[in-house]
Amino acid sequence: MARRGVIVLDPYPRALDLIFTPEDRARLEALGPVVWHDGPPLTDEQVDERLAGAVAIVGQTSLPKERLDRAPLLRAVVNVEGNFLPNVDYEECFRRGIHVLCIAPVFAQAVAELALGLALAAARDIPRGDAEIRAGAESLYDEGVNHGSFLLSGKTLGLVGCGNLGRALLPLLRPFRGEILVHDPWLQDAVVRGLGATPAGLDEVFVRSRVVFLLSAVTTENEGLIGASHFAAMARGSVVVLASRAAVVDWHALLDAAESGHVKVATDVFPEEPIPADERARGVAGTVLSAHRAGNIPEIWPVVGGMVVDDLDWILRGLPPQRLTRAQPETVARFRSKPVG
Amino acid sequence: MARRGVIVLDPYPRALDLIFTPEDRARLEALGPVVWHDGPPLTDEQVDERLAGAVAIVGQTSLPKERLDRAPLLRAVVNVEGNFLPNVDYEECFRRGIHVLCIAPVFAQAVAELALGLALAAARDIPRGDAEIRAGAESLYDEGVNHGSFLLSGKTLGLVGCGNLGRALLPLLRPFRGEILVHDPWLQDAVVRGLGATPAGLDEVFVRSRVVFLLSAVTTENEGLIGASHFAAMARGSVVVLASRAAVVDWHALLDAAESGHVKVATDVFPEEPIPADERARGVAGTVLSAHRAGNIPEIWPVVGGMVVDDLDWILRGLPPQRLTRAQPETVARFRSKPVG
Amino acid sequence: MARRGVIVLDPYPRALDLIFTPEDRARLEALGPVVWHDGPPLTDEQVDERLAGAVAIVGQTSLPKERLDRAPLLRAVVNVEGNFLPNVDYEECFRRGIHVLCIAPVFAQAVAELALGLALAAARDIPRGDAEIRAGAESLYDEGVNHGSFLLSGKTLGLVGCGNLGRALLPLLRPFRGEILVHDPWLQDAVVRGLGATPAGLDEVFVRSRVVFLLSAVTTENEGLIGASHFAAMARGSVVVLASRAAVVDWHALLDAAESGHVKVATDVFPEEPIPADERARGVAGTVLSAHRAGNIPEIWPVVGGMVVDDLDWILRGLPPQRLTRAQPETVARFRSKPVG
Amino acid sequence: MARRGVIVLDPYPRALDLIFTPEDRARLEALGPVVWHDGPPLTDEQVDERLAGAVAIVGQTSLPKERLDRAPLLRAVVNVEGNFLPNVDYEECFRRGIHVLCIAPVFAQAVAELALGLALAAARDIPRGDAEIRAGAESLYDEGVNHGSFLLSGKTLGLVGCGNLGRALLPLLRPFRGEILVHDPWLQDAVVRGLGATPAGLDEVFVRSRVVFLLSAVTTENEGLIGASHFAAMARGSVVVLASRAAVVDWHALLDAAESGHVKVATDVFPEEPIPADERARGVAGTVLSAHRAGNIPEIWPVVGGMVVDDLDWILRGLPPQRLTRAQPETVARFRSKPVG
Repeated sequence: MARRGVIVLDPYPRALDLIFTPEDRARLEALGPVVWHDGPPLTDEQVDERLAGAVAIVGQTSLPKERLDRAPLLRAVVNVEGNFLPNVDYEECFRRGIHVLCIAPVFAQAVAELALGLALAAARDIPRGDAEIRAGAESLYDEGVNHGSFLLSGKTLGLVGCGNLGRALLPLLRPFRGEILVHDPWLQDAVVRGLGATPAGLDEVFVRSRVVFLLSAVTTENEGLIGASHFAAMARGSVVVLASRAAVVDWHALLDAAESGHVKVATDVFPEEPIPADERARGVAGTVLSAHRAGNIPEIWPVVGGMVVDDLDWILRGLPPQRLTRAQPETVARFRSKPVG
Repeated sequence: MARRGVIVLDPYPRALDLIFTPEDRARLEALGPVVWHDGPPLTDEQVDERLAGAVAIVGQTSLPKERLDRAPLLRAVVNVEGNFLPNVDYEECFRRGIHVLCIAPVFAQAVAELALGLALAAARDIPRGDAEIRAGAESLYDEGVNHGSFLLSGKTLGLVGCGNLGRALLPLLRPFRGEILVHDPWLQDAVVRGLGATPAGLDEVFVRSRVVFLLSAVTTENEGLIGASHFAAMARGSVVVLASRAAVVDWHALLDAAESGHVKVATDVFPEEPIPADERARGVAGTVLSAHRAGNIPEIWPVVGGMVVDDLDWILRGLPPQRLTRAQPETVARFRSKPVG
Repeated sequence: MARRGVIVLDPYPRALDLIFTPEDRARLEALGPVVWHDGPPLTDEQVDERLAGAVAIVGQTSLPKERLDRAPLLRAVVNVEGNFLPNVDYEECFRRGIHVLCIAPVFAQAVAELALGLALAAARDIPRGDAEIRAGAESLYDEGVNHGSFLLSGKTLGLVGCGNLGRALLPLLRPFRGEILVHDPWLQDAVVRGLGATPAGLDEVFVRSRVVFLLSAVTTENEGLIGASHFAAMARGSVVVLASRAAVVDWHALLDAAESGHVKVATDVFPEEPIPADERARGVAGTVLSAHRAGNIPEIWPVVGGMVVDDLDWILRGLPPQRLTRAQPETVARFRSKPVG
Repeated sequence: MARRGVIVLDPYPRALDLIFTPEDRARLEALGPVVWHDGPPLTDEQVDERLAGAVAIVGQTSLPKERLDRAPLLRAVVNVEGNFLPNVDYEECFRRGIHVLCIAPVFAQAVAELALGLALAAARDIPRGDAEIRAGAESLYDEGVNHGSFLLSGKTLGLVGCGNLGRALLPLLRPFRGEILVHDPWLQDAVVRGLGATPAGLDEVFVRSRVVFLLSAVTTENEGLIGASHFAAMARGSVVVLASRAAVVDWHALLDAAESGHVKVATDVFPEEPIPADERARGVAGTVLSAHRAGNIPEIWPVVGGMVVDDLDWILRGLPPQRLTRAQPETVARFRSKPVG
């Protein structure tokens, strides 16, 4: 019965063709009636009209309690974003057994690969080396060209945050064979050890790691938490890779640390995006800069559709979703990461 | 008796302090009398004086047969270079059971890490992205900033050459979980399979791989072997990483392929080094350039001393060397890679 | 406030000293008031008295809705068993946000190791070989002593069921480097691929695998599902390892397949346990028999206490549990595995 | 020219059909003229007749210097055994650049799998458990049936000897995630570390490991080296797996340690083979016994032919052999392992 409810697709700002292959469209239609909506989001009236029959809503639709009250068949809400937004009454959803899901995992591999690429780029000064050759200013082989370069192999590496991103990065770091420290206040020590890593305090991660990867979502608990004292505690010439959101660090302290030459910094994110013309980082040496390009690469988008169809299929067959991230009652209200502008 | 022979150290252009820690010096002296020589190489006369008592020579000393005839105690020759030079009578050494060794393995991890770093830098356009931000010219998040970026995960990756460098790189590539093709005419198929890779013809590597790593030493058989047809056979937007010696490729064909936008190229080596001012690559887009910086990073040099002492210790105790590369009768005469200028 | 609720421990048939180290006792008491109860379970009256103040109940306590109604502080129920029992009103718990947990994961590593041990024991006829030497009846080296023995390396291996047990077994099987097939109707294909395995139909697993591991819990959907046709489809001399519950197979068909010599069978479980004196398997050749010894080994029990305390700590701090298995609304009612007698 | 020399096959006690598939026969014949000889070895006269033309001899042919003097084309000698025998003048072969090879690596995977199987069989008492059920004497689930069983996961494991066998075993042990100690007096510490293990003294291996695998060939230096003090140093209930040759241990001390209940022992080898009727081990509890069945399993024999053809192909093409083990000047004279009777 519920199975005959309607699946409402309203995934703005993602275009339907971006995220659904023809095969995934066909698979989705095999699950039941589907409302395909492209372009600007459904108006409030259009949403309201569809609530009564909706078994699933895919999009960033506002869902306060009064809307949920009018959606008796609703079993799943899929936000086509990497973060949960505050426009859904999560408590009410949990009470009703409605799954609220987001597509965070689809970005993880792409972010992990760029994070490793940035770490190697910083450790080996790849962009600077490239720029020097283009400027005709490279150093010679035996004249300190590699002063400041170091191997990742055998070094202690640190992760701050170990959710989707950290778990995608860990396998890429293991062949370097050093100890891997993980600081994540939401992960039990035994779980960290089960991942093959060593649980560590935040300070310890900075003191002991030759490369620190900052991968944590912004929460009510960690905004601006990482600052000058952490960078100062690192061994000189170490690397900080920032791959989640700029709000987890004291941005100017990070740039100061790079500018002073104490650490090398690679960042994919900025406090304000698009990056303002006068963003200080543009002129700071000792940094590798990337314009929020970690997750958003072309080949991931068609994967989104597959994940959405797989999980809707599962939910409509009476099984729990497996690929998308589920909002959890304990944590969903604490996230503060913002969508990319 | 032989054990009391003299170990002659003459490792120019490496300085003794660069390659020997105090601990390794002490370990070496515990093996028997040592002649430590720093600075410009020993003169011919100085070498000749030391031949009669030498049990091991560490350096790039010329050793034709007539010198070997005067070195009855000699059991090991260690070239403190990554390649075997033509100034030793290898056949005579093999006949006498003298080990001829070089330090190639010490560079392998450093080259492998840079090769992976260059692959990620090219696949994700890291240096270009960095340069664009510094120039205030970056694209916006949803406006094709990542057009051309791709994941290594799940992609077929290819190696041309699988000696020390390839074997160090393979573990770093495995977590990307794609098939790994290896073309190496000196490796049996079963050995390649034993490494967890798929043996492949040279053409097949280019046709099927999204990233091709060129890692083979220059030999009498492969100079300039890789050219325009190979690059043309790659899928558009694929990556070539050149990390061994420029002489294995047709250099202008490689630059043409990058310049046309058909492939992305990352190279650590150049036909002439130091790189001439008018080297064409300096102005070619679609490339990541690195000034022969792959192997020569500060932290590897003290490892050299440890390897040398370990293997001399083993040889003097009547066991085979284990860490340095041994010249092999079948292949030593075929190498043509030159030392870095 | 809720945090000051009482943690009620009533883990019969597990003794408190078996599962709680002194350190875990102290950690638990640091979380709030604890009622420690050993020996036979609390009487109904004793349970009822404790409901009003209970924030967590650890044990196999019956919890119908009317009891939940009287337990307003309750946030967690921990069954100290490997399976969920039908004596809890799960729907009501989900509605109230009460976590219902069981200790299934604690057994996984022990079962996985025994499953691999049984597979090797069967593939190499270890118990039979041992018995023959003790009886003075072993074959000689070159006289077919190993007729029927085979390597796991490079062979296709199959898993039926891939929950806790399968996920613990997969890493142990990977170094054998063959393809690993997984049949699990509750797992999406993409999830199976993410585990590094190949999703497969039930029949395909038997047709293609040299060793099939039966690891699925008994559910409403799979009782007796695996029978004569599956075993007949296997290549002669292949191995079936049964490590979850006997009810998933047609027991006599399994023994027939072993008795005929078509497959070798290793089983840790029996249709009736303790094993009746006249159990047919006792006399069937071609089997390796184990008296439900896979999970229950001494060293796992103190781990149980650590898992329980970790997850209660997390729940009381407002974070989701991480180590114990959570009952899921979609699946909890479908389980039929019985506790060991 | 040499390439037209004759390949002489005289692999008794291996039958040609056992080790050569039709494909490998054809590949071998493509290399040049071949003398195929089956059954009892060639007589001295027959050998002598073939020396002048032989480019390779595959078999256990005696090759003293005076025969080598009559074999000017000879470039390879392949012993179709796991060990080098004293019937070849190795020094003369080395002087002449003749490769002397044996098939040791072909057994490594089979021995490694059985060694792991024996370790799990002993750690979990699999054969005893099987025998008890057959005898109607098994213990019940909650009555100590698993007293004495332990997990390998997380435990320190030790290897004595780390040649072909150890290197095949290491990958199988890694997923258990404990530290792996290696004692091998012929391996440098850095090489052991490169294998992902910890170098350790012989005593330390026994003191610290929960399972010790004895994998070393018998040499002039280790006959009977491991004895009562080593077993006594192990933690009670630990396991010794003997998988190479009995001569490396004090056999009665090993059985005493098992009989006393201090350690559990699993052995594939015996001081005398075939095992004498009155071999004491037949009646010793606390042991798992296997009649030298580790390496000799049916599927390995056709692999031998492939290895031999691959390496002869390589040698005749002027490249070094890669799959068979080469005799080394430093160590070949020290081996004392005997062929299996």
